[in-house]
This record gives sequence, structure tokens and C-alpha cells, in this order.
Amino acid sequence: MISEFRLTRRVQFHETDAAGIVHFSCFFRYMEEAEHGLWRAAGLSIAPPDAPVGFPRVASSFEFQRPLRFEDEFEVLLQVTRKSTRSLSYRATITKDGDVAARGALTIACVAKEAGQPMRSTPIPPDIASRFAVAREAAPEAPPAPAGAEGRR
Amino acid sequence: MISEFRLTRRVQFHETDAAGIVHFSCFFRYMEEAEHGLWRAAGLSIAPPDAPVGFPRVASSFEFQRPLRFEDEFEVLLQVTRKSTRSLSYRATITKDGDVAARGALTIACVAKEAGQPMRSTPIPPDIASRFAVAREAAPEAPPAPAGAEGRR
Amino acid sequence: MISEFRLTRRVQFHETDAAGIVHFSCFFRYMEEAEHGLWRAAGLSIAPPDAPVGFPRVASSFEFQRPLRFEDEFEVLLQVTRKSTRSLSYRATITKDGDVAARGALTIACVAKEAGQPMRSTPIPPDIASRFAVAREAAPEAPPAPAGAEGRR
Amino acid sequence: MISEFRLTRRVQFHETDAAGIVHFSCFFRYMEEAEHGLWRAAGLSIAPPDAPVGFPRVASSFEFQRPLRFEDEFEVLLQVTRKSTRSLSYRATITKDGDVAARGALTIACVAKEAGQPMRSTPIPPDIASRFAVAREAAPEAPPAPAGAEGRR
Repeated sequence: MISEFRLTRRVQFHETDAAGIVHFSCFFRYMEEAEHGLWRAAGLSIAPPDAPVGFPRVASSFEFQRPLRFEDEFEVLLQVTRKSTRSLSYRATITKDGDVAARGALTIACVAKEAGQPMRSTPIPPDIASRFAVAREAAPEAPPAPAGAEGRR
Repeated sequence: MISEFRLTRRVQFHETDAAGIVHFSCFFRYMEEAEHGLWRAAGLSIAPPDAPVGFPRVASSFEFQRPLRFEDEFEVLLQVTRKSTRSLSYRATITKDGDVAARGALTIACVAKEAGQPMRSTPIPPDIASRFAVAREAAPEAPPAPAGAEGRR
Repeated sequence: MISEFRLTRRVQFHETDAAGIVHFSCFFRYMEEAEHGLWRAAGLSIAPPDAPVGFPRVASSFEFQRPLRFEDEFEVLLQVTRKSTRSLSYRATITKDGDVAARGALTIACVAKEAGQPMRSTPIPPDIASRFAVAREAAPEAPPAPAGAEGRR
Repeated sequence: MISEFRLTRRVQFHETDAAGIVHFSCFFRYMEEAEHGLWRAAGLSIAPPDAPVGFPRVASSFEFQRPLRFEDEFEVLLQVTRKSTRSLSYRATITKDGDVAARGALTIACVAKEAGQPMRSTPIPPDIASRFAVAREAAPEAPPAPAGAEGRR
């Protein structure tokens, strides 16, 4: 069973914006890249060809503390924070040189995929669910605040 | 004073992913596109050349309820939900044919921009702050839940 | 029969990069957005659900002359330049305030889509091919130079 | 002096589209990622803070032969093909398991960056130009055809 994954990554130029920093939408992509790394480390692909189930994103959030810039090297620590019959939740902590740049959260649900049908919630198949465990050691600091909370700067 | 903005938009092919739906990171871009439309409707640009202040994103979240697909037409209703000395918060409601596809939130802060210096929090200039007001009529349903909350599907 | 399409578009912040201009990869997306507008104007979708054929991109190029910046309004003129049994080619001219910002080209091919099979070239179905005609009036200036040619600045 | 660089990379989910393959615009980003790796291997950054010169893209093209899919591992071989006083050109060969997926080309120019001024062509500074050499061994097969050429499928 696996409960966390560390991705080391460098900021690419196309991820920056005219403010000279990584566009905030890219942090959600970084978190997802780490998630897919977690699944590969668990011996799985989150989207194999012709899979009978899929894992759409149900909710996601980020709090941004320090900007990242072109060519910065950073780390994404992704940890499983909750596992239920039909969904998985993760926390992402993005750091650069040991300082937190951003903290994110992501919840995904399992759905049955039938051609031409709307997505339908379904339990996570046991051979997938059995690979993941909730991380025992939480990240040292508090989890992301509610999305509507005021920025702290 | 302005407190909300409606953006009508069509899903572009490059915004879809191999699951056949809009990638979740693009919803954050849709919300920001509506925000910049709100600022233009207020007679402002959020990032004019050589501006002494900037507005980095402090926190952002989305809850996803229904997927969007290639060529879907949808609407983003962006509403100001909070205005403080140094930050602004918005709520976004993304609908397609009247059904809610996703609900988001975004908080931005005002920072002074000095070349080679780290960003420094500063009050929103009065000629900017005076253009925005909190939306009186909230969206009919509850605001987005905390980011760590379980998905509802 | 349709042979050209004009798309008016505004630069979004997430399309800019740390050089303060639109990232070059986004021009290819602008060209494709205009292509899909051309198809819709022809009464078609280039990627309807469960279509038996698809239209992968075979070759594409751009020459860049003037940068576009955040909130610039620009026009994409897309013109059909060649129509063969199995492929279509377009030229794109991107202008801002009447000045050419970039010139592009795109060739797409028709392939049969069979689940789990590699793409296989196939003739464009007649009810699609019959909707498009090569633009009679070419853009006033020379077409894009070969991709390997030297930049002209 | 350096004349080529090899980047190994995995396809990320957000780079795929509803056709189930990597969106063609992402290949241009892959080529640029390899270019910036080449510069780092030469001891340089292509966009250091407060640099007096910049390197906008002047022309770029790709020919696509085989699609890439989610989680595919691929290699980008980037080679310097031309070096002039004011510009550099590269060729990119993207392969997966030894098979060519796509071939690209990119030309960049050197410009002086002055705040509020249009970009102005300028010679590449000697301490930059001296780091790069044209690749002696060309890629074994023909360079990309002109952008307007017919697709070969």
C-alpha cells in the first residue's frame, strides 16, 4: 500500500505568465502530475485504455504562499488524506528550497464509463482501492483553509 | 460600482483531455477570464503595462458537478463576495443550459511590484477599490464547501 | 461551400508568458479555434461524439512577426488553401489593428477511428468534403516560408 | 560548445485531448523544453531575470507521424541546425521506442529588451553565441518539409 509520492519538477517557460510567475492554474496540473506518479508507483495507471471506470475530479483547491518562477526546481509532496468507498482525497504540499510555495487539495470519485451515457458513481474496484492507504504522518502544518477564506498576505 | 459579470464561452478542443471532457485546470482559467472581463467592465485592466501594483492569486477552489465537453456553450457568472483593504474574493458559477457544471471561488491580494524585490502586500489603490462592490444577491445555492470536504457524488 | 472564416479573439492572461507576450504555442491553438469555427460555419463539428472518422493534424507551422500581449484584440483569418481526397490545408493570418502578427499553416488528414486500432488514412466523407472549397482570393502577401527557412528579422 | 540535447519526458494527462492523444500544440512546448535544457547544459538560462536581451520565436513547424498518448515515454533530440549573427535554428526529433513521432523546427532571434519599447533585433552576445555550435551529424532522415506541403498519410 502506498500513501504518498514526491515529484521533483522544474518550472517550464510555457507555465509562466506576464506577471513573471507560474500561472496559478498550473499548480493544479502539478498536483495531478504527482497524483499520476503516485498511481504509477502503486503499479497502476489512472486512465488505462478501455478502462471500465474513470476518476473525474470532484473538488480541488490551492492556497498560494510564494510564487514560482521560470526554471525554479520544486517538489510536490502528494499524500492520501482520505479513502472512502467511492472517492479518494489528497493533499499536496509544493515546496522550493524547503519553503512552502503552495498547499493544495484534490478529491476524485470513481465512475463507471459507458459509451454515450452520463458518468455514474460506482465503488472503487478492490484491486485499485487496496493499493492506497491514508498517510499516517500528516504534513506538519495545518491543511488548506476553506476555499472562501480570506488570503493571509 | 460593479459586482458581477457574465461570460459566455465555448469549450475549445485544446481544453479537453483524454477522458473526453474539459480538464479541471481549465475551469480555473475560465473563472479568471470572467474576472478580467469584470475588471474591463469596470473600466480597468487587472495588469496594465508598468502598473505599480499587481494582483496575485491567494486561494482558489472548484467543485465539479457536471462535465463540459468539446463545443459546449457555457456561462460563467462571476460575483464579488468580499472586499477588504488588501484583497478581493469572488464566486464563480459555471452553468450549461441552466444546469450548474461547477462552482468556484477565488481570492486575490494586492501587492506592490518593485523590480527584483519579493512581492509585498499593499492596500488596493482607492481608484481600483471604488469600482467594485460585493454582490447583493448571492447565488441561490450554498457557496463552495471547504476544499477538504468530501465530494458529493 | 465555405472557404474562409474570421475569428475575433482577445488575449487571455493565461496565454501570456514571462516575456510579457503570448506564448508561441498559443498561436497554434488560435489557428485551430478558427478552424473549428470554420467547420461550425459549414454546419459541421470536427469531432462529434462517436464519429467514425477523425482529423489529426499532419503538419503545422507559424512565422511570428509582432508579439501579442494581454488583452490585445486580434483577428484570425483562416482560409482553405488545398483540398485533396484525404487531407485539407489551411492558411491563417493573425492581425491586430490591421497589422500582421503571425502567419500560419495547418494540414489535417482524415483517419478511420476503430477502438484499439492505429489510425488509418481514409478518404474524407463526401458530405464533409463537399462543404469546403479552396479560397479563391489568397491572402495578399506570400504564404509562410518553409519551416526550415531562416527567420527574417 | 554544445550542439544537441536529449530530453526524456512522459506525456501528462493535461497534455492529451478528447481524441485521446497529445494535442499538437504541446509538441511545440516539448521542443521548447528541450531547447531550454540545451541552454542549461550550455551553462545558460534563456531568460534570466533582468536580461538585456531576449529570444523570441521567429518561426516554428512540426510534422506529425505517430500520436503520443497518456503516460507514453518519449525522447526529444534537439539539434542546432544554423547559427547566424542574430538568430539560432534548431531541429527536433521526437521518438517513442525508437520510432519517430514528430519532427520539428524552431528559429529564434535575439532582441534588445527596453521597457516600453518594441523589440529590436540585435546580435547575439558573444558569451552566448560562443556556447553553441551547429550539430555536425544531422539527423539521419530528411528535415521537415515546407509547412505548406501536403500531409503524407
